[in-house]
This record gives sequence, structure tokens and C-alpha cells, in this order.
Amino acid sequence: MGKIAFWYEFASTYSYLTAMRIDEAAQRADVEVEWKPFLLGPIFKAQGWTSSPFNLFPAKGRYMVRDIERIAADRGLRFQMPDPFPANGLHAARIATAGRADGWCAPFTRAVFKAQFADGKDISDADVLASLLANIGVDSEAAFAAAGLHAAMDQLRLTTEEAQARGIFGAPSFTTEDGELFWGDDRLEQALAWAQKL
Amino acid sequence: MGKIAFWYEFASTYSYLTAMRIDEAAQRADVEVEWKPFLLGPIFKAQGWTSSPFNLFPAKGRYMVRDIERIAADRGLRFQMPDPFPANGLHAARIATAGRADGWCAPFTRAVFKAQFADGKDISDADVLASLLANIGVDSEAAFAAAGLHAAMDQLRLTTEEAQARGIFGAPSFTTEDGELFWGDDRLEQALAWAQKL
Repeated sequence: MGKIAFWYEFASTYSYLTAMRIDEAAQRADVEVEWKPFLLGPIFKAQGWTSSPFNLFPAKGRYMVRDIERIAADRGLRFQMPDPFPANGLHAARIATAGRADGWCAPFTRAVFKAQFADGKDISDADVLASLLANIGVDSEAAFAAAGLHAAMDQLRLTTEEAQARGIFGAPSFTTEDGELFWGDDRLEQALAWAQKL
Repeated sequence: MGKIAFWYEFASTYSYLTAMRIDEAAQRADVEVEWKPFLLGPIFKAQGWTSSPFNLFPAKGRYMVRDIERIAADRGLRFQMPDPFPANGLHAARIATAGRADGWCAPFTRAVFKAQFADGKDISDADVLASLLANIGVDSEAAFAAAGLHAAMDQLRLTTEEAQARGIFGAPSFTTEDGELFWGDDRLEQALAWAQKL
């Protein structure tokens, strides 16, 4: 069975598109998915960017919103831009990282993306995150405690460093076991096809 | 019959991918294509970039080369990066602009992209361009003369200004008659489908 790693960042609009469809697409392709939340902030900072490229380059930002609107409409997804953008997804990313060990990273991730980009919720708000956890049957106090431990904080930092070492510069990205890198929701099918051939 | 405008820049690797397939794809979709060569340089400069983003952001540049290699292999196209990159495509763009009025812009454009990205030729070299023109049955002295007239130079400048006014920030891009903008070789099918519905 093929495998891919799915690298995503909670503030990333295109990561939302992928999170909502990767499980079904991977199942059809008989490929296993490892969900890897990471932080784009340190990677952007390392190349001299102080914010999202969609803020730094306004024409690109305007285009991105329209591009996502069209794709979301095609896929029957709701979409609205959060304000402020990019959202602060650090706490959510630490919780998702804690969830990797416990098997609820994927449903929590989908819930966070949907809350942010479909429902306009503030994903840096602890009450919002607690309610998302409760909805998927996870004890939010235990999850918050796990997310605050060095284990989760260190793993998120290491995952971000690993992303950078693999040449990742944006999200979503996909890597296969032979080290190929694919960037963007529109490369999911290529990544799955590549993993199938290994 | 639907219509799209195809905006491209000769130094752009992804524009090469599109130029080699857009006529066939548009014919299948029963959509007419207007070929619009323009210059990315002034648009990049306006957002503070002094070179291609693939040079300014090395991780993105390395990824782009691999991405194009994989796609070109899938499509049976040869690909190599020109040195230096980006090539100076100003003369070629002026000639292509002159060719828009004379009906040979598309075959000339394909010849320039193939010379650069498949055959490793220097597209700023007048001898290379003269030989490409001869191969498609165009008098190169007449074409060079037309490219040097104010008419062609002004039209290229105006096309570039129009691109910027339409929100274009990269190449290839596609616009439909209702003003929708699509960016990237991977959005060609969406642009054609949009044009069909108008």
C-alpha cells in the first residue's frame, strides 16, 4: 500500500480544500495518509516574509480568494475569508499534533478548517477549540494539557524543521516515501499516483 | 463560441507547458484562443521583485524545476532549464506581438518556447529567432522590422499594462469575456469550462 505525508498549516486556505477531500481520494487510490500539521510562519520568515504572501502581494491575494471561491463552489464547500487573515493557528496546531498520537488528528483538523473557513470562527479562541474537540468526542481539558506539554510543542517544531529540510515552502504539500515533493491542492492526484507506483 | 485570452511570457516555464497544448484543448472545448504575449518584468518590479520569484525564493525555484520535469515527462515534452534563467524574451515578445496582426503569433510562440525549453537555445539571439521565423515560413527581415516599429513596441507595452489592470501577476494566465482570471497551466481546463458557459 502506497503512503503519502500530507503537510498542512491551519491558516492556509488551500490546505482547507485538501483536508476536506484527501481521505476519500486516498482511499480510492489505496494510499495511506499521514497527517502532518506544521507552521509556515518560520519558513516564510526564513525567506524574508513577515506575513502571508497573499497579504504581501495583494494581486495574488485577491486572485487566491476568487480561485478558492470557484473551487469551493464546484465542490459544494462553503468558504469565507477569516478576519484577520492569516489566523493564528499555533494552539490548534499543537492540539492537532497531540492528536496524532491519539488517532483524532484528522477529524480535529477537518473541524478546525471548517470552523475557520466555512463558519467564520476564530480558531485562536480556546472556547472554539474546546467545542470542536467535544464535537468529535475528545476531552478538551486533556487535549489542551497534552498540547501544552513539551512533547507536543517539540514535535510541532521538529515537524516544521523537517518540512523545511524537505524543501517545503507552502501548504498543502505532499511527500512520498522516495522524497518527491508536490505542492498545492491541485497536485494531490499526482502525489497519490506517484505513491501508488512505489 | 466561447473565447479566452491566453496571457504568456517567454521566460515562463509554465507558459511553455500551456503553449504546447492550448490549441488542442481549446479546439476540443470549442473555445477560441487569443494569444497575448506580455512582459512579467514590469509587473514583478511593481511588487518589489528584481528577478523571477524562482530565483528570489530558491526552495520554490527547485520545486518548480522538478514539477515541470514531472509534468513534461507525463506529456512527452522535453524540458531543460535555460542558462541564464530567466531568459531575456523582450525581442521575441515584440516579434510575437507583430505576428498577432499577421496570423503567425501562435506558431512562432510555440517555436520560441520549444527552442528555449526543449533545445536549450538562447532566445535573445537574433540568429536563433531568424531561424525560427524561417522554419514557420515568415520573412525574418520583415518580422524584425515590424517588431522594431512603434506599433509593436507600443502594443506590447499596452498589453502588459492591460495584464496588470486585469490583476494578472504571473504567467500563464487566462481571462474570459466576463473578466474572470485563471492563473497557471493547471487552471486551463477551468478557464475553458468557464468560457463555454458564457
